[in-house]
Amino acid sequence: MTVKTESIKLSTNGNADIIDITDTVSSRVSESGINNGIVTIFSPSATSAITTIEYESGCVSDFKHLFDEIIPQNRDYSHNLKWGDGNGHSHVRAALLKASLTVPFVEKILTLGTWQHIIFLDFDNRSRRRELVVQMMGE
Amino acid sequence: MTVKTESIKLSTNGNADIIDITDTVSSRVSESGINNGIVTIFSPSATSAITTIEYESGCVSDFKHLFDEIIPQNRDYSHNLKWGDGNGHSHVRAALLKASLTVPFVEKILTLGTWQHIIFLDFDNRSRRRELVVQMMGE
Amino acid sequence: MTVKTESIKLSTNGNADIIDITDTVSSRVSESGINNGIVTIFSPSATSAITTIEYESGCVSDFKHLFDEIIPQNRDYSHNLKWGDGNGHSHVRAALLKASLTVPFVEKILTLGTWQHIIFLDFDNRSRRRELVVQMMGE
Repeated sequence: MTVKTESIKLSTNGNADIIDITDTVSSRVSESGINNGIVTIFSPSATSAITTIEYESGCVSDFKHLFDEIIPQNRDYSHNLKWGDGNGHSHVRAALLKASLTVPFVEKILTLGTWQHIIFLDFDNRSRRRELVVQMMGE
Repeated sequence: MTVKTESIKLSTNGNADIIDITDTVSSRVSESGINNGIVTIFSPSATSAITTIEYESGCVSDFKHLFDEIIPQNRDYSHNLKWGDGNGHSHVRAALLKASLTVPFVEKILTLGTWQHIIFLDFDNRSRRRELVVQMMGE
Repeated sequence: MTVKTESIKLSTNGNADIIDITDTVSSRVSESGINNGIVTIFSPSATSAITTIEYESGCVSDFKHLFDEIIPQNRDYSHNLKWGDGNGHSHVRAALLKASLTVPFVEKILTLGTWQHIIFLDFDNRSRRRELVVQMMGE
């Protein structure tokens, strides 16, 4: 059994920018020397999150629209009243969707479905540089 | 330390069909030969998800109702306009709830609460055959 | 490779009480004797959940407000009609946010962001005593 901790560096536009990180995660897994196990992708940030989706422009647009509806940017947030940085909605969106995703892999291949891609969502209200944690564990 | 990867095959009705998979996951864990560790249940699909709930008809109905409210089927989705398959809502629901769940087990027993069951939700708009990944890791 | 299963005992006020458990989880990790791996924090309950957030009163209040909006307490729930315990909203909230969170750690330190804290949310409609599962796995 082995643990390998790697990272993924990203530049994002913020504002619910959605980035497909499937190929990068797959590379980290295949280069890890571990055959079977899990990869945990974790965003060390309070304004971003990780999930899976069919990565085509329709689904991506529809998913962004959900957050505009249930957690809109332009209304009062206690966080904004206190701190004035205008990203209150970013924090609520990130806490709901969560910063962590665990995906099993078998013989160095992620067990994703055909149309299922791993995405990073940057909910902050400005462009950001991000560094995600990608940790493989297995045998 | 050992990794064991198994699967669960399901036939679903789609349309937010909610299936209790607790007993099957428990069996996979108890038969794995691993005493303590985690089980990751992962749905290799872009239109389904996994979580826990008290599996009684009231809670199940209330949970379905949430998705009808915040991500209704009958309205415009960019995905539907592009692909015409009518399951735009399925993709958004699945991306929000996520395809992965990790549950610790101790002495071959899942650490679930008394009323807490593991459920698979098929959000697609038609009946489907599904095969979930169930991966145990531990010692 | 080692697995260590510990617990965290909490008394909560219920009603979306949000408790910062970061320091306690960090202690369990640093005392585990494991250098690199994952910690899975799991709530063995059908009316509570775990995620991360910037733990300042504004964000915490905004996050509670989300659940009041999309899953309000005071309306009809099938669960309440059947069981009369008035916590139908608690079950739906918990199923949406999920009872499990996995966080990698490196050299005994959680890979959290600067402002990112691990929180336990008790959605039940009364004060509760809770015992969370905290399981470390790694080498």
